[in-house]
Amino acid sequence: MSELKGAMIIGQSGGPSSVINASCYGAIKAGLDSDCITKVYGAANGIVGVLNDKLYVMDEEDPEELAIMKYTPSSALGSCRYKIADPDVDETDYKKILEIFKKYDVRYFFYNGGNDSMDTCNKISKYMKRVGYDCRVMGIPKTIDNDLFGTDHCPGFASAAKYIATSLVEIYQDSHVYDKGQVTIVEIMGRHAGWLAGAASLARVAGYPADLIYLPEVDFNMDEFLEDVKKIWDENQNVIVAVSEGIHYADGRFVSEAETSATDGFGHAQLGGLAAKLGDVVKNAIPGVKVRPIELSLLQRCAEHCASQTDSDESFMAGQTAVNEAIKGVTDKMVGFKCTRDESGYKCEAELLDLSSVANYEKKVPVEWINERGNNVNDEFINYALPLIQGEIEMKKENSLPRFVRLKKVVAE
Amino acid sequence: MSELKGAMIIGQSGGPSSVINASCYGAIKAGLDSDCITKVYGAANGIVGVLNDKLYVMDEEDPEELAIMKYTPSSALGSCRYKIADPDVDETDYKKILEIFKKYDVRYFFYNGGNDSMDTCNKISKYMKRVGYDCRVMGIPKTIDNDLFGTDHCPGFASAAKYIATSLVEIYQDSHVYDKGQVTIVEIMGRHAGWLAGAASLARVAGYPADLIYLPEVDFNMDEFLEDVKKIWDENQNVIVAVSEGIHYADGRFVSEAETSATDGFGHAQLGGLAAKLGDVVKNAIPGVKVRPIELSLLQRCAEHCASQTDSDESFMAGQTAVNEAIKGVTDKMVGFKCTRDESGYKCEAELLDLSSVANYEKKVPVEWINERGNNVNDEFINYALPLIQGEIEMKKENSLPRFVRLKKVVAE
Repeated sequence: MSELKGAMIIGQSGGPSSVINASCYGAIKAGLDSDCITKVYGAANGIVGVLNDKLYVMDEEDPEELAIMKYTPSSALGSCRYKIADPDVDETDYKKILEIFKKYDVRYFFYNGGNDSMDTCNKISKYMKRVGYDCRVMGIPKTIDNDLFGTDHCPGFASAAKYIATSLVEIYQDSHVYDKGQVTIVEIMGRHAGWLAGAASLARVAGYPADLIYLPEVDFNMDEFLEDVKKIWDENQNVIVAVSEGIHYADGRFVSEAETSATDGFGHAQLGGLAAKLGDVVKNAIPGVKVRPIELSLLQRCAEHCASQTDSDESFMAGQTAVNEAIKGVTDKMVGFKCTRDESGYKCEAELLDLSSVANYEKKVPVEWINERGNNVNDEFINYALPLIQGEIEMKKENSLPRFVRLKKVVAE
Repeated sequence: MSELKGAMIIGQSGGPSSVINASCYGAIKAGLDSDCITKVYGAANGIVGVLNDKLYVMDEEDPEELAIMKYTPSSALGSCRYKIADPDVDETDYKKILEIFKKYDVRYFFYNGGNDSMDTCNKISKYMKRVGYDCRVMGIPKTIDNDLFGTDHCPGFASAAKYIATSLVEIYQDSHVYDKGQVTIVEIMGRHAGWLAGAASLARVAGYPADLIYLPEVDFNMDEFLEDVKKIWDENQNVIVAVSEGIHYADGRFVSEAETSATDGFGHAQLGGLAAKLGDVVKNAIPGVKVRPIELSLLQRCAEHCASQTDSDESFMAGQTAVNEAIKGVTDKMVGFKCTRDESGYKCEAELLDLSSVANYEKKVPVEWINERGNNVNDEFINYALPLIQGEIEMKKENSLPRFVRLKKVVAE
């Protein structure tokens, strides 16, 4: 265990979540509390802020205000979608990063994001080793998609899952209010993995199940979909469908992008989202049926008012652990979660995973958790996800509206 | 003041809201607590339940379970969209209603709904008077659209407004996360009145204003809209637009239904919702711009998890008042709200309005509250609406998901 004194940078990258700031705050707080870390910088818009020499001095922030970060959605420091080059091909960015690290005596670098961010992290770490600059680099996971490899789940997933399940429970009340029902189609995020669409199954714990759930893990078949909808419609005069935006046909084409087939009664490409498109197909197949397509859109990843306390606490812990472990000498790791679910309840602890093992892999919903017909998930999914959404956060309010963090954002010079 | 002993019926009608059950529970509880009211019936699916002789015996419900109605969205007794005939033209329905009233000795009838429901209420009341059947009839207002005449505001509006404002505050965090922004277009309910779209202005109280707000009270001009969006885009590289689904051109055509004009670069009708349509027009006008259309859809009227305590309490009070006043001898009235907003705060009390004066009129947002350009509302709107969204309800949860009322629904024989 070697003591390394110096400044730290934390950056946030990729799409927002309700708890990425909880992780960021965990890291900042651990940095501010440590004697080893001489200064805590927040990168403005992730790695782009490092490249542009735009760092915020977190030591200048009021501690009470800073604590509100824990319950503020999206990335308070700003995010980016910058894809860093392969250092073997182009060293420009890395040289600039090294220059900034030297300028501010940065010895700790933490990057808070999804798959691509772990890749960025990994590349920077390798480069610093190669040029002999002593710097500890750690990844702090974040993705509502829940598709990072090696960890039980990802910070951000549970709050999105809770929003989705809560919304489905409430939509159920609405869609069952009349004597004659409707076909409600709820479109949920997730391009390649169906974790979020699967979370729709949690509504059945509350007694209000979605009838059909389609995930991108299995091929979508429009004829079978219509059969399934018609069957339930004939029985109940009411159908709720939850569908992942990433569903695709057996030939790989996304249903959202493909032209609908002749059997759907359409021979042309449709505008609008996937839910609207499936809605048109259903309308055509069941004459006179009322159809309501709903796209949960951005709110599933930023609805702080419906976040999971478990998710928020674990996210904070992940950020804190990254910094504390780095101080102890660890580098080149991502903080993952190792969890147990048994009769004694749910337990979650941090474990450290090699950055190189998590970067660029995608974890999908196990096919054993999906039913044979490919139109729902079984209780194994629920046993997995239900503990993660537990607890209500203590979000600050003013005028009964969310009161989110207001950072001073003093730029380092 | 004449004492009238007998049973009561409460029915719910029209679209859901987060608090229509709070009103219904207020009425049921007042009925159960009264010595005058011998039995409390809930009509299954509003007036349709009366016509079909399907009434639930509320006396059979467990009081603790029943209390959960206060925090359950949508209509727990079921709703309908049944348009009752003019009794001068067709008496069939009225004769059936009278038969049911006699069968169960119904002397009190309460109807919980919007404009059409007040009309139904009014017609039944007049008919019973004409045939000499002693029955007291009261309307209990409900509409997220806030367009009932004579009352300061309508139960249900504030909770929808709170959901809209909260969502806009959260969407702001999401849409401002990258160094380069986007044009976010949020479509809000309200076909003829812009109260709900206007509620988007409350997000500016929290410090996260929507840049542009379009209401159906003023004619929409696509060229001016594009000018406005471009101007803000050029300044900030980020625009948030809130738009009522009911916006229309000067000639009365709804923008959502009209073919887009040649100036939009489209000459044909668009599929999908209004937000998607405006999004396409913006994409065409600002090359390379990222556009995110969002339709708040059903959740704005059923998101109990974001309801206003003020709204919930006032709704309960409206139901309770209707019953208590009817017991005192009042009939043929709707319970409205009379409110004051001054330095001593906000106060709301019930007032009784003639059913005939409220039925079939629509209250719109005063034009003085809309700016000259017709693209936002001023602080008068905020002063009006802000007090209404205050307070958080105590929604029951199980497994951290909403726990809504589970009625036995024992059918009367």
